[in-house]
Amino acid sequence: MLIDKTPFRTIWVEPNGRFGSVKVIDQTVLPHRFVVKTLATAEEAATAIRDMTVRGAPLIGATGAYGLALAMVEEPTSSNLEAAFDLLIATRPTAVNLRWGLERMRRRLAALPEADRAAAAFAEAAAIADEDVAVCSALGQHGADLIRDQWERAGRSRTINILTHCNAGWLATVDWGTALAPIYKAHRAGLPVHVWVDETRPRNQGASLTAYELGQEGVPHTIVVDNVGGHLMQHGQVDLCIVGTDRTTRTGDVCNKIGTYLKALAAHDNGVPFYVALPASTIDWRMSDGRAEIPIEERSPLEVTHMSGVTASGAIETVRITPEGSPALNYAFDVTPARLVTGLITEAGVCAASEEGLLSLFPLRDAA
Amino acid sequence: MLIDKTPFRTIWVEPNGRFGSVKVIDQTVLPHRFVVKTLATAEEAATAIRDMTVRGAPLIGATGAYGLALAMVEEPTSSNLEAAFDLLIATRPTAVNLRWGLERMRRRLAALPEADRAAAAFAEAAAIADEDVAVCSALGQHGADLIRDQWERAGRSRTINILTHCNAGWLATVDWGTALAPIYKAHRAGLPVHVWVDETRPRNQGASLTAYELGQEGVPHTIVVDNVGGHLMQHGQVDLCIVGTDRTTRTGDVCNKIGTYLKALAAHDNGVPFYVALPASTIDWRMSDGRAEIPIEERSPLEVTHMSGVTASGAIETVRITPEGSPALNYAFDVTPARLVTGLITEAGVCAASEEGLLSLFPLRDAA
Repeated sequence: MLIDKTPFRTIWVEPNGRFGSVKVIDQTVLPHRFVVKTLATAEEAATAIRDMTVRGAPLIGATGAYGLALAMVEEPTSSNLEAAFDLLIATRPTAVNLRWGLERMRRRLAALPEADRAAAAFAEAAAIADEDVAVCSALGQHGADLIRDQWERAGRSRTINILTHCNAGWLATVDWGTALAPIYKAHRAGLPVHVWVDETRPRNQGASLTAYELGQEGVPHTIVVDNVGGHLMQHGQVDLCIVGTDRTTRTGDVCNKIGTYLKALAAHDNGVPFYVALPASTIDWRMSDGRAEIPIEERSPLEVTHMSGVTASGAIETVRITPEGSPALNYAFDVTPARLVTGLITEAGVCAASEEGLLSLFPLRDAA
Repeated sequence: MLIDKTPFRTIWVEPNGRFGSVKVIDQTVLPHRFVVKTLATAEEAATAIRDMTVRGAPLIGATGAYGLALAMVEEPTSSNLEAAFDLLIATRPTAVNLRWGLERMRRRLAALPEADRAAAAFAEAAAIADEDVAVCSALGQHGADLIRDQWERAGRSRTINILTHCNAGWLATVDWGTALAPIYKAHRAGLPVHVWVDETRPRNQGASLTAYELGQEGVPHTIVVDNVGGHLMQHGQVDLCIVGTDRTTRTGDVCNKIGTYLKALAAHDNGVPFYVALPASTIDWRMSDGRAEIPIEERSPLEVTHMSGVTASGAIETVRITPEGSPALNYAFDVTPARLVTGLITEAGVCAASEEGLLSLFPLRDAA
């Protein structure tokens, strides 16, 4: 998608030596700076995931895959493959398609002679990245059809207001995004859309990344704090919600950024459709009760007590916003039960948030 | 209550000349600085309310009353009384007991000769402040009984976890607070309590003021972002919620800080009792449908796009946290419908959030 009118992906390979050089957009300094970082080793890829230079389930998956490819350039032994796998899988325990991408890479590479592994690893990582783009584009089109339906039902007479939480845009994937892909597809098709962007404390991915993405693509949007969505829905100012997910159970429970559950409750209370957009790779077919089974990552309290931004003089500065001595707790995700989800938007179409719904689109998983 | 082990009120009069000097704690620089400001004119009182040097419905009411008293020192004419009334009432349209306090002052003063007005105004404002302290102390005791009930039901075996939103503590009143008064009373009575403090974006009154108050009083607490409460309630980590209100309809709908509605939905979804603590002065007996009738204040988008705190070097600094060019919208309150409220904690006791419940405690209002 566009940054300063130039098309970008979030991760790409530039020609350099035998295998090229892995580049990513540093998302920790957005929206205030646009900085491209080079990942030269598996360790650097792991750090980029851990410190959220890259974030978002699909992009984490692609970065993990390239991390294993970099490990194979460093030392293509099976023991190093296992060590890099363990290093990378430990960075973000909640992200199910990090595991999915790494397992796919390991399966492919373990079967090859050491001399072939680096080249094959780069090719496989590129395939994972390209497939992610195709998946996001497909689910974007299915979601855009839902937005078009709303617009038709409104007599084609007014702007359709969509609320989203966190950043499930193209910056969270390789391109297009998940929750934002339907919005980009609808906008490019000429449908009048406006997006309510939840700030998404504590890391503000909405107020920083989602607002930045939408602004760069020219999509009308308004930032609101996380507390506002319920009021907007009470007053008919939201036509539908679309959010992403880091992990989805086979029964349709959704584990997404902390606070998603509260918006789903408000949507349910006000009859507002609540959709979740997801690539099938985020479905965890082994799980059937999200609240009980999905481990919730607890992150540093510093994300709550301190806030970064740009000063009037243009410097990036961090300020403490809480009293000294007051502790803080920082759960990163919550689980929205399937009963609150109107539908799941996937690359294979839209289905009910239920085992029956998911199996109707992905029938081969029945045996999983 | 205590600041640095010294008892304070939020507004008081120090000896100075004939009528004394009105002092307030500047709440805009808390928790990073403790600064006392002098209000010398009605205009300064209005500014203090408008720029949130003082905030919280009961404290706004007391400050408005002292504002009228200062106007009577400046010029005790009826036209100046009306002008000061109009100036002060316009500062915060949502605060019903600002109107209540000002109307009480005007009624008292209009009947007096000009020469008597200033002294009578200071006495009446002091009476309003003292009555507020008595009201908060009484509702605090009723609320502490509810906390004790929870503790008894838990077999007196563990800490009772209470979630609160925004700052309805003593800093929002003259002393004791509303939502926090039950917690202070319970804590001083030796009950084991722990408070989940919602950050309360965009102005962070929870993360700054509530955490500061509780810390100064020695009450165990943990700051969480506004997105976390639903997850905590899903996992049994909240025994009850207690929040304040700026305006309560005769039917028990509650208008409180934006985001309160979302917490009430989560409490309802998880069977967690959701209480609202209020002095009777916040009841608007003229209204019966909060969502439809209560005007919601819209404040500056700068509160959303910019954040203040203290830098590593100790300076207070403001940073922009959003992309340039992205608009923001800032609703300050929302309405929680009575059906989501377990009970109302008032100075006259605890009642159901309904017309019947309120009339059982305040029967004389039946004719209002």
